[in-house]
This record gives sequence, C-alpha cells and structure tokens, in this order.
Amino acid sequence: MTLFPQTKIGILGGGQLARLLCLKAHNLGLSPHVLSLNKEDPAAQVTSSFKKGSLSKKKDVLEFLKTVDVATFESEFVPSSVLRHILQQTITPIYPHPSLMALLADRLTQKQLLQQFCIPTSPFIIINNLNDVTNAFQQLSPPLVFKKRHGGYDGYGTYILQSQKEAHVLHDALKKNPLGFIAEEFIPFKRELAFIAIRNLSGDIAFLPLVESHQKHSRCFWVKGPIDDPRLKSFKIKLTKMLHSIEYVGAIGIELFDHSHTLYVNELAPRVHNTGHYSLDALNFDQFTLHLLALFNQPLPKIKLLSPGFSMINLLGESNKTFCVDKNIEDAKIYWYGKHETRSGRKMGHLNMLGSSSDAALKKGLRIFNKMNS
Amino acid sequence: MTLFPQTKIGILGGGQLARLLCLKAHNLGLSPHVLSLNKEDPAAQVTSSFKKGSLSKKKDVLEFLKTVDVATFESEFVPSSVLRHILQQTITPIYPHPSLMALLADRLTQKQLLQQFCIPTSPFIIINNLNDVTNAFQQLSPPLVFKKRHGGYDGYGTYILQSQKEAHVLHDALKKNPLGFIAEEFIPFKRELAFIAIRNLSGDIAFLPLVESHQKHSRCFWVKGPIDDPRLKSFKIKLTKMLHSIEYVGAIGIELFDHSHTLYVNELAPRVHNTGHYSLDALNFDQFTLHLLALFNQPLPKIKLLSPGFSMINLLGESNKTFCVDKNIEDAKIYWYGKHETRSGRKMGHLNMLGSSSDAALKKGLRIFNKMNS
Repeated sequence: MTLFPQTKIGILGGGQLARLLCLKAHNLGLSPHVLSLNKEDPAAQVTSSFKKGSLSKKKDVLEFLKTVDVATFESEFVPSSVLRHILQQTITPIYPHPSLMALLADRLTQKQLLQQFCIPTSPFIIINNLNDVTNAFQQLSPPLVFKKRHGGYDGYGTYILQSQKEAHVLHDALKKNPLGFIAEEFIPFKRELAFIAIRNLSGDIAFLPLVESHQKHSRCFWVKGPIDDPRLKSFKIKLTKMLHSIEYVGAIGIELFDHSHTLYVNELAPRVHNTGHYSLDALNFDQFTLHLLALFNQPLPKIKLLSPGFSMINLLGESNKTFCVDKNIEDAKIYWYGKHETRSGRKMGHLNMLGSSSDAALKKGLRIFNKMNS
Repeated sequence: MTLFPQTKIGILGGGQLARLLCLKAHNLGLSPHVLSLNKEDPAAQVTSSFKKGSLSKKKDVLEFLKTVDVATFESEFVPSSVLRHILQQTITPIYPHPSLMALLADRLTQKQLLQQFCIPTSPFIIINNLNDVTNAFQQLSPPLVFKKRHGGYDGYGTYILQSQKEAHVLHDALKKNPLGFIAEEFIPFKRELAFIAIRNLSGDIAFLPLVESHQKHSRCFWVKGPIDDPRLKSFKIKLTKMLHSIEYVGAIGIELFDHSHTLYVNELAPRVHNTGHYSLDALNFDQFTLHLLALFNQPLPKIKLLSPGFSMINLLGESNKTFCVDKNIEDAKIYWYGKHETRSGRKMGHLNMLGSSSDAALKKGLRIFNKMNS
C-alpha cells in the first residue's frame, strides 16, 4: 500500500482518537473515511466522508471496508465476532491485523502474550465463575484486581477486592460478561509510566519518549515527560521481539507500573493512545502521523523532542466551558474534541504545554487547567 | 464573540488556506463551515459542514452568512459588489471587516493607504487607458510594472514593460479590466522578505518572524527564516499605527522588497499567507490558529521559535506524485492540500523543515524536494 494522495483510509470509530487521526490524515493528503454511529461524533465532523454505522454490526463494518483502500481501528473494542467476519470476508488491508486486535483486546490472551516474551506483568488467573474467585484468593496475594476480559476501560469493568469476603460484588458482573474476567495481583506501584511504540510493515520500530501518567478517578488526568529510566532499554528489547513476532503494524500504547526494581506492563493498547497526545506539540512527529506512516510502510522518522519538557492535561467533564485563555496562559495548546454533550469525567479535550523540564511543563499546565476551571 | 466550543465559523473559500484554517478550527473546538464551488475542494474535504456556492454570487454568500456565527475570508478576491451587499445586509460579524477587504484588495487604495502611513512602497500611478500609460512612462522611471487593480496573483495580471513602445501589450488587458491597473516602478530588489502580523479585536498585535521568500516563475518556491533585520523595528511601528487606525482584525501577510537601505512593501495580503506556512511546525503557534484567536478576541500568545532555523518549500505542479519519503528525508513535514487535479505550477502542498539555521533548514528542505521530484 503506497501512500498516494487521495488514498481512502477507513477509520473504524468516530471518537477523539479517530478525530485526531483524521486531522493528520488530511495533512498527508489521504482521504479519511469514518465509520461511526452519529454524524455529530468527534471524527465525523472533520471529514466529508462519514458513514453512519455500528462497529458491532458486521454488515456495517464489511460494507464500509469495501469503500476504502486500507483501514485502521480507533479502538480495540470491536466485537470478536465482527473481527472474525472481517478476517473471513474482506480483502481490504487492515492494520493492526484484525487477529491481533482480537488477541490484544482480550486481557487474558494479552497477558499470555506478555508472559510468552518474558515481559513482566502482574500474576493473574482466569475467572469464569465464583469458584474461580475463591481459587484466585488461594493462589494470588490480595488485594486482587478483577478486570473484564473484554471492553473495560478507564476503570469501567474493574473491581478491586481485598479478600474472598467481598466476592459477592462480582456476582452480577460475572453473569453479565460471558467472556469472564481475569484476576491479577494489585501492584503497589510508585508511579505509572507509559510510552508509544510504532512498527511499520517492514519491521522498523520507533519509540516515543517515556512519560509519567497520573490518574484521577481511574482516568488519565495528566502526563509529563520525558522520563529517563535505565530499565527501559532491556524492556524495549523484549517488546521489540514481541512486536516483530506478532508482526504488529501501527502505534501501540504501553502502560506500565513502576514498582520496586521492575517495570510491569499494566496494559497494552493496540492503537494511538491518550498518553501520546503530547506528541502533537512536543515532538517533530506526532503519534497519529506516525501511525499512518507505519500503515503505509513509510520509513519511520527519527523522533526528536522540540522542548526539554512537556505535559498533557486531559480536559475532563465539566471543563468544556468557555475557552478562557488569558495573558498568563499564553503557551497552552488546546485541543477540543467537538463533543456536544458534557458528562462528568468525559474526555472533552486536552491541553499540551512545553517547558524547561517535565516538572516545569506540568506546573504550567496545571496552572492553566486550574484557571480554565475557576 | 466568545470562543465557545461548537461556534460556527464560516470560511468564505475552499482552497488550501481555507483547508488549513479548518483543520486548526477543529482543534479549537469550533465548527468550521466552508462555502466553496465544489465538494471536492481542499477545504470542503476536511469538514462535515460544506455549502456549495460561489463567492461571486451575493445570494450564495448572504445565505451562507446567515448559517454561521462569525465569518472570515480565505481570499481578498471577493467581488466588491458582493462585499457591498454583505455590508448592507448581513448582521453576522465578519473579520477582517468587509470594507477593509475592499480597501486592501484594490491595489490602488492599498498603495494609498501605505502612503498615508508613510510606509515605503514603489512610486505608482493609476492606469485607466493608454494615455495613462504614456503618462506613466513620463512620470515614473522604467521599467514599469503594470498590475491589475483587482484579482491579480502569482504573476497573473502583471506586466513588466521596459518602455512606452511596449504599451500595446496592455491594449486588450485594459479593455478586459474595467477597474483598470496601476503602474509602479520596478524595484531592483536584492531579495524578497515577508512576515505575518496578527491583530485581535482588542488591538493586541503579534508579529511572526521575518522570512526571506524566493519566487520561481512568479510563484513562491521557498521561504527560510528567521531573518534578522534592524530596519524591521521602525517598519513595525508604522505598520502598527496603520493596523490600529483601520481596526484590522486577523492575520495579514506583508510582502517586502529589500532594496538599498529600505524595506518597500510589495503587497499586503489581508489573510493568512503562503509565506507563513512554516509556522505550522517552527513556532509554538501557527498563523491559522492565531488568525482564529484574533477573530474571537483572544489574547495573542507570545510567539516562540521551536527551532533556530526553518524553511518551507511549496510543492508545485507535477510534484504531487507518490509521497516518497525515505530514511534520508526523515525530518520533512509534508502537507498535501487534497487537490484532485495536478496542473503545472499549481500549489499542491508544501513541506516544512527545521534546522540549525535558516540556511541549514533550506538546504535540507531543497534536498528533500529534489528527491521527491527525482
């Protein structure tokens, strides 16, 4: 697939990640097509090629794929049944490969993959029923984190249980989720880290800088970077082996727990990632452009920092008020996602800030954030 | 006019300047609406809110303006008759003010304005017929440059005559252009310079760095910067007075001739400008975002360079081939405009390059340009 101007790239999904992908696809001269439920969705607003449809309906997805030259995912939460139909019935190239999306969207198979490549992750077992919960508390050290195998995000579908006595909490959740849960040991991390890797079709890999991410109510609140960590080098070697082995193509977000002497993988997200939004301003190439270059098997450029430090702050929930910049917040770059409805905790936009260090950039970013909300 | 998310901003025009404005409007959470002839036009592709219509038809323009909260121009070439109707009949705020667009789109009144503020520009006289041409050669020193008062660009509508003997060349042109021409003395410039100023509704003004621009076949080929020039300071003082006096709002491109000891204004372009495209990568804020912030009377951020040097190269005509990046051109940021039809000399896209100096950035940029065309 060569990156010709006007090449139709299909984006499965219409949220903010799809929106930012579209905006960068336009710069590359691509013609981005969006499949999403509503013409008011964030990505649907930024292209003339919107197709109304559901990612959960195989007919919608298959018909959409026929109209584009190549496709990619906004999210890993396409039902595995739909992914199976895509695999069987479409000839449109799709990256990452739909079978990898299925593999990585399932927390069980994702964990197994990490183990296979000796990439540290918390001990876990599969949970299909309440007996398995009892078993988990026998085999693992509490507290235990119970996560839906499919479709959990930002804390939804996640339960932290201190002991077997609380098992009843899972009763309904187990009934509602036929694919079940995994239980994993809670890692008492010092901090959370993350980075983005991008692999193109030829196997070139680029890494974006390591960042620290901070969550509030289970949602990413801020990111700062770059973070220097001597453990990253050996971690990347293992990750590189894994990405080559599964022939991953595109951007992948790697969320890490920093605990004791080890970097543990919390989660892999097979797509562009919220913790990489700083790249829109702090790097010579952003994660969205890099994801697209990778799909078209373009050589990946050398990544350079444009500033010694940077931060990104998510504008959650009620912060979608007036865009009130003033003289003192002169450096903030703000990205709104065009969401019509504000809900508490909903990601409405983000702001990027550069600074003389990661901490300076975070401090400046938070000052602006507080002003926007005051 | 406050910059609320979802505010509908109407853009009169659908070319590459409108496209780049739209892309940045999306980041600000605005809802950009485009009025243009064709749904395949560059700007029409990057929004869900395209309206088919002609900038030359008052009905199309007036109806479009009713559907938006605020509007701006992509180009100064809206017929003055349409501008008059806008002035009389629309209540939608439009920036720059339509009367200023009329003033600046006419080379005669633009020249008179510059004179009024003692801003150097080449001596000129008005040309309505062949007698005026004779008169021009008596009063001014040849060679003389004859320019259409309205609608000329990239060398179209411009004639350079060495002497009175060549006056017949203008015969047909004068008949076809009832608004006539101006004649001005040719300035034997050492180099061409340019910069962008942005003024918001409150009267804050920001200046982008001075750049050198180089033309090929009367079209901008490359831009490099920043250029340091001691004469700029006093020039900016006069320009500032002028912008305040006419209450200009938005970005304005200032094209200069560097000759002898003086900076002469070649032309003012009341809009975002091709010579400012480097700002998409080389500055903390780009000219498109700044233009939009100015319209919404946001405080203008302090402009900072992200690199010691930068260049921009227009991808003209036949260069809209495959996007062939390779390892050696790792740093180029390329922007395609989504034009379906390639014509020789047509602006199809541009590339931005950062470097350790303006010359280093230009050298790198040209190397990539040559590779893309080889």
